[in-house]
Amino acid sequence: MVEPLKVGLAGLGTVGSAVVRMLGQSRDALTLRAGRPIELVAYASKDPPKDKGIDLGKAKKVSDPVALAKDPGIDVFVELMGGEGDPAKAAVEAALGQGRPVITANKALIAKHGVALAKLAEKNNAAFSFEAAVAGGIPVVKTLREGLGGARITRVYGILNGTCNYILTRMYKERLSFAACLKEAQRLGYAEADPSFDIGGFDTAHKLAILTSLAFGSEVDSEAIYVEGIETLSLADLEAADELGYRVKLLGVAQRTETGIEQRVHPTMVPKGSVIAEIDGVLNAVAIDSDMLGLTLVGPGAGGPATSSAVVADLVDLASGRRSLPFGRPAASLSKPKRAPMQRHEGGYYIRLAAVDRPGTMAIIAKGMAGENISLESIVQRHPGLRPHGGDDPKSAEGPAPVILITYATTEDAVRRALAAVEREGVLAEKPQVIRIEKS
Amino acid sequence: MVEPLKVGLAGLGTVGSAVVRMLGQSRDALTLRAGRPIELVAYASKDPPKDKGIDLGKAKKVSDPVALAKDPGIDVFVELMGGEGDPAKAAVEAALGQGRPVITANKALIAKHGVALAKLAEKNNAAFSFEAAVAGGIPVVKTLREGLGGARITRVYGILNGTCNYILTRMYKERLSFAACLKEAQRLGYAEADPSFDIGGFDTAHKLAILTSLAFGSEVDSEAIYVEGIETLSLADLEAADELGYRVKLLGVAQRTETGIEQRVHPTMVPKGSVIAEIDGVLNAVAIDSDMLGLTLVGPGAGGPATSSAVVADLVDLASGRRSLPFGRPAASLSKPKRAPMQRHEGGYYIRLAAVDRPGTMAIIAKGMAGENISLESIVQRHPGLRPHGGDDPKSAEGPAPVILITYATTEDAVRRALAAVEREGVLAEKPQVIRIEKS
Repeated sequence: MVEPLKVGLAGLGTVGSAVVRMLGQSRDALTLRAGRPIELVAYASKDPPKDKGIDLGKAKKVSDPVALAKDPGIDVFVELMGGEGDPAKAAVEAALGQGRPVITANKALIAKHGVALAKLAEKNNAAFSFEAAVAGGIPVVKTLREGLGGARITRVYGILNGTCNYILTRMYKERLSFAACLKEAQRLGYAEADPSFDIGGFDTAHKLAILTSLAFGSEVDSEAIYVEGIETLSLADLEAADELGYRVKLLGVAQRTETGIEQRVHPTMVPKGSVIAEIDGVLNAVAIDSDMLGLTLVGPGAGGPATSSAVVADLVDLASGRRSLPFGRPAASLSKPKRAPMQRHEGGYYIRLAAVDRPGTMAIIAKGMAGENISLESIVQRHPGLRPHGGDDPKSAEGPAPVILITYATTEDAVRRALAAVEREGVLAEKPQVIRIEKS
Repeated sequence: MVEPLKVGLAGLGTVGSAVVRMLGQSRDALTLRAGRPIELVAYASKDPPKDKGIDLGKAKKVSDPVALAKDPGIDVFVELMGGEGDPAKAAVEAALGQGRPVITANKALIAKHGVALAKLAEKNNAAFSFEAAVAGGIPVVKTLREGLGGARITRVYGILNGTCNYILTRMYKERLSFAACLKEAQRLGYAEADPSFDIGGFDTAHKLAILTSLAFGSEVDSEAIYVEGIETLSLADLEAADELGYRVKLLGVAQRTETGIEQRVHPTMVPKGSVIAEIDGVLNAVAIDSDMLGLTLVGPGAGGPATSSAVVADLVDLASGRRSLPFGRPAASLSKPKRAPMQRHEGGYYIRLAAVDRPGTMAIIAKGMAGENISLESIVQRHPGLRPHGGDDPKSAEGPAPVILITYATTEDAVRRALAAVEREGVLAEKPQVIRIEKS
């Protein structure tokens, strides 16, 4: 009889419970795939299991996750508590420090301490895997670490937060406001009571930082990410995008540029018909562009079953003796990230202005753009129209007139300066709305 | 200095040349990823390299691929000659028989002899990898072997032939005939002079057979696949599908059913807005449904750069010491495939009939369907209309009238019997066109 892989698991929330369930239900299939049984022998959890129906069998309960991580009776420590600080960090360090393999789904921990932990793992010759930390059930970490041969990656981007994608999908399909869709997402459990981490783009940024490091062989650099959330998006923007042939998605984008690596999270217009544009609801998608090929992976980014399948895939790799370096190459060889500043970002822009309805406004806007050498691909002026001498429709004469500009490729800097110039002229009733356009 | 992985490569066509190029160009990155250099030391090729620009360095030329496979100077034999017979088969057997790892892109060989070769590999403890054999650059073999944890797969399907997808995309977008688009594909090098292997669905069937085995843990069973090509599709079908909210794709589908595993290749209607429906041009896509999650992988299915990146990924795995069993579990444990016959297939159907224009025809069609308990979701009758007493438009009075039926879920058997019954009544001017509908 082959020795089983003995698992110590910390955290019995949604994902932890689903892992325990899968290890039980798929025992025979996993033994076939791994060449030996994978067995839960100990666990730590401050709360009772999230899923009451799971069978913890003969696994022993350990009260302290750090003690569990150091337990010589386990072959691998699975960290599913979450959080960038202790006890997760202390427990992972304790296991790796003793040369014990660690599997985690903790994106915050990897985004903040991933490189230091990878160095610790490599120094102690311990496996350290985190497939479940990015895009849940989508095997994007494995694909970036192992699946691309010698291809040189030029861009990695995607929809990495199901909450935001759900809200944007509902706004678009049902023509509802952001506030209404957020409330609905909260009711359905897709958004937290305090949703700012998701809708502010910070969750996407954590995941993007990890993808960037894997894709470009650079140290994780979450601090360098430009982050904008979806809170300021209005239905008017989604409708205008629709008419112009685009969908609006919250994307995380990391891109090799001449000045360095650009990392940014913001609402983005993507052309309809592209795979990314068609990803609706809570699904995630990651696109990887390289000199050899472009790949897109689509699947569930969260939830117990999907995320646990990623954790269990890491367990099967470990049990089979398949080893990858945490970041696909020695942690010491990861380059110092060379940051490309957001002001240097180049691309097309969607700009929605609330222009005051008076003669000369359009000329001022056009002059502002021309002053920064911004060429316009299209200008759409919506009713209430900008009329030269007012009009007899009292409604249109009152409010500001929406003007939508689509620019050809320009720079972030130029757009900001141009809009500041237009604002100084006092012709805008509101702060301009700016959405970057991403080519697929 | 770590020992390099010494590569012997047979076949310097498009893919072989691209592999040699990538090993040269990405040498440093590959060494970092693999932990040691990957070096071409010998090659066999009956023709000069397809890509004249590649640098074969100091690699020695061996005239016989079987001799190369047995050469003790190489650590791995890379087979890129193609073909299910010799010399590919003999060379792969020679290498594996000596315990030498083999990497191949040869789908015909795997579809025909994959299980026997896997058994030989496992008996001699040799790695045997074929990522490049299915869907080119898409890492679907790795995903099925390693990426899904304990998930139980229920269906795997996709667009596996770029030639067919290119033709169907052009027909749809440019409203061109099948013949015109085939000719164009041939001119662009996307289709062979004799295109029957691609457009007849046989290439898709080879790849599907391999995916089925990996997904369901059953022996490769290409013989069991029901195959229909795209030759009979007309622009009228694509246009009708469009109006009904569908796109038509050539899919390979393998599905777990109550009677066994159903494997089929045929033109398929997929709902617009689904990821598969939006895959255009020569791209491939593979969707994997399981009890835990659904994944879709999109990328290039052919071409030198994409396919070579899959070959090189297999080389990096080997050089790093990462091993998988060829089919993800012991070949001896692969189950005998239990075939689900096509007649038992259940699903919705699109049926296009050329009905003769005379009273009672519609009643005969409706009766034929009702006789097999087939419920209709929609009936569309196009001009020239079926009119009860002829009409004054001479054109419409002449030709047969197209009638399009969309059925609710029924069986293949019922549809065939119902159509036979209608045909016997002499009310059809042409053979009925039948396209199966696949739920996404």
